[in-house]
Amino acid sequence: MSTSTSVSGKGLLLKADSIAATFRNEVEKTLANCSHAPKLVGILSTSSSPSRTYAEFTRKQCESLGFKFVLKETGAALPNEGLGEGEGVEEAIMEANEDDSVDGVMVYFPIFGPQQDHYLQQLVSPYKDVEGLHVKFHYNLYHNIRFISPSSLSIPTASATGSTGDEAENDIPPPGMVKSILPCTPLAIVKCLEYAGVYNKILPYGDRAYGKTVVVVNRSEVVGRPLAALLSNDGARVFSVDIDSIQEYTKRPSDSDSSRKYHPRHIVRPPPEAYNTLEACLAVADVVVSAVPNATYKIPTAWLKDGCVCVNVAAEKNFEKDVRDKASLYIPAVGKVTILMLLRNLLRLQQYKNVSPSSTAGSPAQ
Amino acid sequence: MSTSTSVSGKGLLLKADSIAATFRNEVEKTLANCSHAPKLVGILSTSSSPSRTYAEFTRKQCESLGFKFVLKETGAALPNEGLGEGEGVEEAIMEANEDDSVDGVMVYFPIFGPQQDHYLQQLVSPYKDVEGLHVKFHYNLYHNIRFISPSSLSIPTASATGSTGDEAENDIPPPGMVKSILPCTPLAIVKCLEYAGVYNKILPYGDRAYGKTVVVVNRSEVVGRPLAALLSNDGARVFSVDIDSIQEYTKRPSDSDSSRKYHPRHIVRPPPEAYNTLEACLAVADVVVSAVPNATYKIPTAWLKDGCVCVNVAAEKNFEKDVRDKASLYIPAVGKVTILMLLRNLLRLQQYKNVSPSSTAGSPAQ
Repeated sequence: MSTSTSVSGKGLLLKADSIAATFRNEVEKTLANCSHAPKLVGILSTSSSPSRTYAEFTRKQCESLGFKFVLKETGAALPNEGLGEGEGVEEAIMEANEDDSVDGVMVYFPIFGPQQDHYLQQLVSPYKDVEGLHVKFHYNLYHNIRFISPSSLSIPTASATGSTGDEAENDIPPPGMVKSILPCTPLAIVKCLEYAGVYNKILPYGDRAYGKTVVVVNRSEVVGRPLAALLSNDGARVFSVDIDSIQEYTKRPSDSDSSRKYHPRHIVRPPPEAYNTLEACLAVADVVVSAVPNATYKIPTAWLKDGCVCVNVAAEKNFEKDVRDKASLYIPAVGKVTILMLLRNLLRLQQYKNVSPSSTAGSPAQ
Repeated sequence: MSTSTSVSGKGLLLKADSIAATFRNEVEKTLANCSHAPKLVGILSTSSSPSRTYAEFTRKQCESLGFKFVLKETGAALPNEGLGEGEGVEEAIMEANEDDSVDGVMVYFPIFGPQQDHYLQQLVSPYKDVEGLHVKFHYNLYHNIRFISPSSLSIPTASATGSTGDEAENDIPPPGMVKSILPCTPLAIVKCLEYAGVYNKILPYGDRAYGKTVVVVNRSEVVGRPLAALLSNDGARVFSVDIDSIQEYTKRPSDSDSSRKYHPRHIVRPPPEAYNTLEACLAVADVVVSAVPNATYKIPTAWLKDGCVCVNVAAEKNFEKDVRDKASLYIPAVGKVTILMLLRNLLRLQQYKNVSPSSTAGSPAQ
């Protein structure tokens, strides 16, 4: 762990590089077994310089690992064409959807703002949605549906036939099924927490965060809400904190309900009276994840529980400089893991094509 | 037009009742030819009193016309169950999707806020989406795809095969096709403008708003943006005004492009220099539609063009009291038309079931 340092008395600084390295290996191995290198199309339609930097970063990662990457530029990304921000992005998405040589499509957001961007996210074919932003995948995530048959993505409603991990002993899908795609950023955070030892591998699959209390600051549809759902579906107690409210996500039944071990998926409820402030939640939090897109927002180190694990997801740091006076472990950024999750999704979507639709009725694998 | 009054010197006050009456007749006639009365399920999951009022209004309208209406209450709509706002709404949607006796599903929004609500809107089966909020219908609207084959709704991507009205002489779909569902509120506004004489019936179908300049204040995905697209796809020049920008929507080519009459669908571009303020846009606007959800927002009467048509869509009036000093015609609300558009969509979705998927390849009607 060359990138981690432990200065006397301070918590460990855990940079994303070391976590990313393990997934680079996994991705390289899977890619070596592919009949051809998958092709990813990135769509850049704005003049945003962070988006262009991210696009170049995607290219570098793809090329160093052996994926094909094509950057499709349109709109204000083409400075001399007189096109507006986001102009042509829909056409570029539809073209990539219909091009059989394209295996994955990613769009560089933000473009128009949350509402119109959400519309665009639903236009990407779920069979090419490496970012995992399609409602079908979000539905599966929220409903703890881990394994699906690829053909269920063709059903117009979200009632995908699928299976939670409850019956599974590990994360291997049953014959005829594949893993549902998870959105890259929340997935990357989960992987960072696994690496950081927050997930207990001795516990059964699907419940390995049991016993952990997590605070997630921000409840957007892109990061905070799916992350809170993922962690609570894995057994954690999560306080989801946003500007106007605190919610508790858990799959544990309330004390009065002793009839079952836990719900098949998380429920959302107001927190107990004692936990209706961020300060009170942080006092019991084993893990704190913050993703507030505001340079001035800082979580007070004084409120953290001694020895907690802190993860910053925002571009500007949401933790104070002295965070490691309290945290046992601090992950300042997750971007380098996120891109590997995207490439992992790309490989997984290729796998979708090799599962025969006729084998989805639970018949054994060929 | 008993509900309209023209006080000397003032513009006409046109209440939605008289517009709604014409559609009540149409809906009643179509319903009389149905083999059974369609069943609409309304899903109320919050303690919001405007939502409950709207639900009761829906019931009244349905029952007076002969539709079946079932109100499914869940979450904080059930005051004694201790459930949170929106709790159970997803389950209620999925249940209604899967219930063959249900023909249409409407959900009373807002529930969680724009992002999570948009997620919920995508869970409603497009075959039961009376509100027309599914991305597939929005995609068709934005792309001026008016006629579709019902089976195209089962394709996972939005690349619905369809047809613009360009080839059509009227609004009758070709054999094997049906009209795409339009979102209720923007459609109701278009119908109000048709009624108000803004659409010129002498012009060819699909271009009847040609020559009209329209200002639409607000660019949400629910009202402003789809409305601007609908009007410009019908030939109007639209200035779409939002807090941070003004955009021009038009399907007319720029002067330099004389090769074609007009684009198959609208394009969006920055307005000419002279129209980069609301005041400048209003000075040339034949029609002004405002849907700003803010009680204090008022469009200054002084800025209106003499003789324009004004439509208020917001709950609190966006026009000043003296608006009719300038406007030739003022429509203060559209809600009563909106509900009829919803019932019209319900009847149309029933029609979807009677179009055979095998007849979608352009074969003649049976």
